[in-house]
Amino acid sequence: MIIFGDKNSGNCYKIQLLTALLDIRYDWKDVNILAGDTQRVDFISMNPNGKIPVLLLDDGRVISESNAILFFLAKDSAFLPEDHYQLAKVLQWMFFEQYSHEPYIAVARFISLYLGLPDERNAEYESKKQGGYRALKVMETSLKSQPFLCGEQFTIADISLFAYTHVCHEGGFSLDNFTGIRNWINRIEKLDKFMPMAKP
Amino acid sequence: MIIFGDKNSGNCYKIQLLTALLDIRYDWKDVNILAGDTQRVDFISMNPNGKIPVLLLDDGRVISESNAILFFLAKDSAFLPEDHYQLAKVLQWMFFEQYSHEPYIAVARFISLYLGLPDERNAEYESKKQGGYRALKVMETSLKSQPFLCGEQFTIADISLFAYTHVCHEGGFSLDNFTGIRNWINRIEKLDKFMPMAKP
Repeated sequence: MIIFGDKNSGNCYKIQLLTALLDIRYDWKDVNILAGDTQRVDFISMNPNGKIPVLLLDDGRVISESNAILFFLAKDSAFLPEDHYQLAKVLQWMFFEQYSHEPYIAVARFISLYLGLPDERNAEYESKKQGGYRALKVMETSLKSQPFLCGEQFTIADISLFAYTHVCHEGGFSLDNFTGIRNWINRIEKLDKFMPMAKP
Repeated sequence: MIIFGDKNSGNCYKIQLLTALLDIRYDWKDVNILAGDTQRVDFISMNPNGKIPVLLLDDGRVISESNAILFFLAKDSAFLPEDHYQLAKVLQWMFFEQYSHEPYIAVARFISLYLGLPDERNAEYESKKQGGYRALKVMETSLKSQPFLCGEQFTIADISLFAYTHVCHEGGFSLDNFTGIRNWINRIEKLDKFMPMAKP
């Protein structure tokens, strides 16, 4: 199978981290969004939404959306609970990640780290910071009393939220008041076969 | 079980539609966001993210995020594929809905229908329209050649995307050039036990 992605993207790093932890082999194809790679005909034919990461299976089938790829690849592993309620809770956190976390924390990081926080985007950046801190508070509510987001067991929900949370300082966020999140990050970084994210 | 929601919210309508189609019984509690109901201590203790819908089970366990609730309630029904790849495709469409569809189509509808499109939000509205049409084009790519988003079988992915798509005209969108989507809407509205969304 082939994963199409950009190693500086947190959404793509999720897949790199899961495959490292589970020893899943794959080929990697670098995709350069800024050069227009995701808008080319061959890419759009795989993912009409023109976003990375994309997983291309050996039989030609395709999955897009980072969290759906995590779900697919974690099959039969300890990272995907068998119990239906527990699985719904894993998905709850991953939908939270895409709606209430990534659009704030990843976008604040993009504006700050990659665009250098230009004046004309300062109001947007401040608004993203507010939303990002709201999301961090929600995570802290769970992580102050349990080791992982869904309880005792490390799941793909943790991978999903780790990706942009552990580099949130690059977007100007401070975790000083989030002890639960800081301990959770340390716990994940100590997992066997943990793979760090590429430096920007 | 109790569902906490607002009948004018598309995210809450998803749950109403699924439970109608599957004959699932529940109690409903109206939540008024504008009156601050989602920020009260008793609500925040159920869902620290302060959003509806929320599902409270009889044993006290809670699930939030509309698409995670759909997943939980559709267990053992034909709307939730057993095949792991097919299930990943269902999730792919639901993550697409939360990231690339709802933030544009539902928000354009909110600005237009509920706020009356005030001048100071016109630029934002136009930007939401662009993103919304992008999402509709992605849906049309699938729906022009198959009856439902994941193929022959109606799934919770269709419920998830039907909620805001079938009222997108209230946000100023036209489906004139989206034959596949129009036929898909008609197909869903003819399902046995179909329940319409409350009128705003």
